[in-house]
Order: sequence, then C-alpha cells, then structure tokens
Amino acid sequence: MANQYLELFQSLIDQPLPETIPAFTKWLNGRLKKAENGSFQMEFIVREEMTNGLGLLHGGVQSAMLDEIIGMMVTALDKEAPAVSVNLSVDFISKAKAGDTIVAKSEVIRQGRQIIQIKGELSHTNGTLISIATSNMLVLQKKL
Amino acid sequence: MANQYLELFQSLIDQPLPETIPAFTKWLNGRLKKAENGSFQMEFIVREEMTNGLGLLHGGVQSAMLDEIIGMMVTALDKEAPAVSVNLSVDFISKAKAGDTIVAKSEVIRQGRQIIQIKGELSHTNGTLISIATSNMLVLQKKL
Amino acid sequence: MANQYLELFQSLIDQPLPETIPAFTKWLNGRLKKAENGSFQMEFIVREEMTNGLGLLHGGVQSAMLDEIIGMMVTALDKEAPAVSVNLSVDFISKAKAGDTIVAKSEVIRQGRQIIQIKGELSHTNGTLISIATSNMLVLQKKL
Amino acid sequence: MANQYLELFQSLIDQPLPETIPAFTKWLNGRLKKAENGSFQMEFIVREEMTNGLGLLHGGVQSAMLDEIIGMMVTALDKEAPAVSVNLSVDFISKAKAGDTIVAKSEVIRQGRQIIQIKGELSHTNGTLISIATSNMLVLQKKL
Repeated sequence: MANQYLELFQSLIDQPLPETIPAFTKWLNGRLKKAENGSFQMEFIVREEMTNGLGLLHGGVQSAMLDEIIGMMVTALDKEAPAVSVNLSVDFISKAKAGDTIVAKSEVIRQGRQIIQIKGELSHTNGTLISIATSNMLVLQKKL
Repeated sequence: MANQYLELFQSLIDQPLPETIPAFTKWLNGRLKKAENGSFQMEFIVREEMTNGLGLLHGGVQSAMLDEIIGMMVTALDKEAPAVSVNLSVDFISKAKAGDTIVAKSEVIRQGRQIIQIKGELSHTNGTLISIATSNMLVLQKKL
Repeated sequence: MANQYLELFQSLIDQPLPETIPAFTKWLNGRLKKAENGSFQMEFIVREEMTNGLGLLHGGVQSAMLDEIIGMMVTALDKEAPAVSVNLSVDFISKAKAGDTIVAKSEVIRQGRQIIQIKGELSHTNGTLISIATSNMLVLQKKL
Repeated sequence: MANQYLELFQSLIDQPLPETIPAFTKWLNGRLKKAENGSFQMEFIVREEMTNGLGLLHGGVQSAMLDEIIGMMVTALDKEAPAVSVNLSVDFISKAKAGDTIVAKSEVIRQGRQIIQIKGELSHTNGTLISIATSNMLVLQKKL
C-alpha cells in the first residue's frame, strides 16, 4: 500500500509542500531533502513561534519534528496496514535558535510485521546533534 | 529563585495567558487550572493546525504539550539554578481530535539537587488517558 | 487463555517459588505479595551478586526486576495470544544495597487488543522510590 | 581520573575478568573485546540462568548487559567526578537463546560536563540486532 507515497514524497524533494498536507505538517513547514525506503531527511527553519522563553527551539517542537519525519517515513513503507506510534523517546543534546536551519533524519532500524523500530535525529547543518529519538510504531491489525 | 514564578502562575489560573509569554507557549494556548509546588495542570483546546492527516491530535503536539506543562512546573520549583530537559519519553495511548478540550498534568516524582524526575499525562476531561510521559531535568551547575 | 496463570500466581503468594519456574526468575528469587488482574507486587532481597562496584543494587538488575514483574503480570492477563516486550524505559531515582528487601510493583495502564501499556516501580519497604519504569508489550498476532 | 581505568580495561581485552570485579559483572561474565575512549565492546555467552520461560534471553538480562557495558565505558572516561545512571531506555528487537554468543557495544554520543549521552546495542555475532538502548548519565557534582 505504500509505494505511491514514496513516489509522492520523492516528487516533493526540494519543493514547497503542497496545500493539501496535514495541518501540523504545514505548521512545521519542513522541506524534504531525501525520501528513500526506510530513510528520510527534511530541513526545518526554526521560527520565532517555535521557541521557548530563552529564544531557543522548544523541546516540545523538537519532539514534534522528530515525530513528523518518523511518521512521514513510515507512511511510505510497504506494509499490510497503516501504522500508529506506540512511543517516542527523545534525548536533548544541544541548542538551536530562531533562524537556524536544522536537519531532521529518520531511519528504520527494523521493520517487523507488527512493530517497526525507528531512530531519528535533529542536527545543525554542520552535523552537531540537537536531539536524538527512538520510536516504535505498531502496524494496525485487521480484525479477524 | 522560584517562588515568584509560582505566585505568577497561580495568578494566571483560569486567565488568558499574558502577551509576554514565550512564543510557543502562546501557540499552544493552554489555560492553567492548577499551579502548586510540584504539581501543575493545564487545559488545551485541540486546534485544526495541531492535527495530523487523520484529523487527530499529532503525536508531536502531544509531546510538546507534555514538555510544556513539565517545563512550566519546573520553572516554579525552588532550586539553586535553572533546569533544562535531559530527556522526554512519551507513550501514546488513545486519540483526541480537533475541538476536544484536553487536560495536561505534570508532577514531580523526586526533586534532587542535580536531577528532577517528573511524570506527565494528557487525558480527556472524562479521565481517559491520551498519553503519558516521564522526563528528567538537569539543574544547571554553577561553574566552580 | 490467562486465568489459569492468575490463579497459579495467586496460589504462590507468600510462598517460595516452585522449582519449575524459568531460570532467571529463580535467580531473582522474588516472593509474590499480590497477584490481581492488572496489578502485581513482589518482594526481592538484594543479594551480593546483584550489586555493582559500590555495593549498590546494579541498575541492570533493577531493570531486570522491573521487566520480570511486568512480564509475570502480563502473562496472567486475559488476552488472545502471548505478549512480548516492545520496550522498557527505566528512570533511576535512589539506591538500594545488599541485604535490603525491596518491593516491585507493576500495573496495567491500558490493555489494548494489540498493545498493553504498563508501568512499574521499585521501592524500599518504607515507600521510597528506587526506580520507575514504563513498558509497552505487543500481543502477538495470529497469522491470517 | 579515568585513564587508569581505560588502561586497566585495555589490559583485560580477550582475558578472563579478574576475581576483584563487581559481583554482578562477574555473574554476567562478559569478555572485553574493545576498550577505547568512548567506545566499548564485550561478548557475553547466554547461560541457561539468563533465560525466560521460553528458553530465550530474558529482556531484563538484556537490559542488564546494556547497562553494564555502558557503565564500564563511562567509568573509563576522563571526567571530573564519578557518573551515575539517570535513565536507561531499551527497545527489544529480536531473540537470543541459551548458548548464543552475543555482542554488546556502547558508544558516547556526547560527553557534556554534567550529562553524558550514550547509546548501546546487543547483537548476534552476524550483526543482527537483539536490542538497542539509550542512556543518560549524570556526572556527580562536588558540593560547593
């Protein structure tokens, strides 16, 4: 069920996202840089409204960016049914500030029939890590 | 260093948040319902722009709401220096949709001199859990 | 498929574990104190061989005790198929030392058809927390 | 304070562990294969007493092995004071059984002055992942 999405995402590389994307995806306003089976990359620009009281990228928005790139990549995997997030575990490593361009990556660690394990990371364009994440997603089971 | 914040947050219970709050806090647009030492509660209304492709509250926004209520509570704790997030671990349990009013709670499990352990949860107003979280925050060390 | 296990565990409360238990369960050598549907409690005595270089209960053994009480409780839940661990997230809070009796508790947060969310904790007998955990378990899917 | 440990560990590569090691380290009975600054590797042989009711390596013992290799590596890092575990998050990926030789690896993601972020993994000798982990460790603060 997924290859159509993979092709769609590939056609969006380095393009503005279309108007039809989900609302929060639009708010994050990332730009796809890579869309391969099991490996995605996006860039986000940190906007003022993504920051905390210190003018730094809010940890919650970091989590949201990680969840977003992970979810997008999983949508495009070949699988029997849609998948939903079981958990997201984020470790915060360094800072980003308004105006920064940051890179989000996701990668499938293992795609099982029921569970898909994924890792993600946010980094600066020079490679300095901002945060890392792991997530497990559940492939929904058709009722017997 | 914190009691002034606790009093400030208490004065904001059931009030609109002031214009001076951090930008992302404003975007989330929660309303404080409880601000006690080590125990906070807010309500958020799920807006369209917080949703994913299925019209459901984005897991990333759930993570952000949890991070927000946790951070706000920790700001108001008596401690020797500001604290920053080490990690945030979220388990996703059930759904919320645009228009829903949801309840965010945070609670200190233990406030150590260097590490503060916290748990948080999002639920519907009827108590049904949407997601749960744990987080560790680090109290910054003054340079010797 | 599970009630037989629940009854079995209930018959073992305050009893030495039988010789037929799994090998590592025997090594941990806990004593069941409570075995209710979705809520278990055991006591462990910290032995020398469970300690690290400081004579304190090894964080890895803490994780193992938490995994054990969680797994035992889930075995006894009514469900369509066996369940396996997807993840275990442990936060370390305080110390225990050789000779201490410690209390392990597990509780189901939500039992879904495919995913079971669980929390666990280790504490001293006076209630002081040693560590807390969350875990997600997957109910194995029968092949269609 | 650490280089002496790094040299000690390097001298133990491919050797039986000395009698003076911590009790639980002895129980795990690993063999060091690599001990570099910020990157360690050990091999463990899965013993019967490490298994669950299905004869498979207990998830709790996997967590303990990961905690062990992470802790050993951090002991050998140059730092101002000893470090303790804040949290350990483990994702379970595949099985191992009694008799298997398995490989444990740990790696420092970032060594900060107060927090050290680490990742670890267990795999079969052919590289198949058994479990992955992240951990945060706190460098203890000298009292001012």
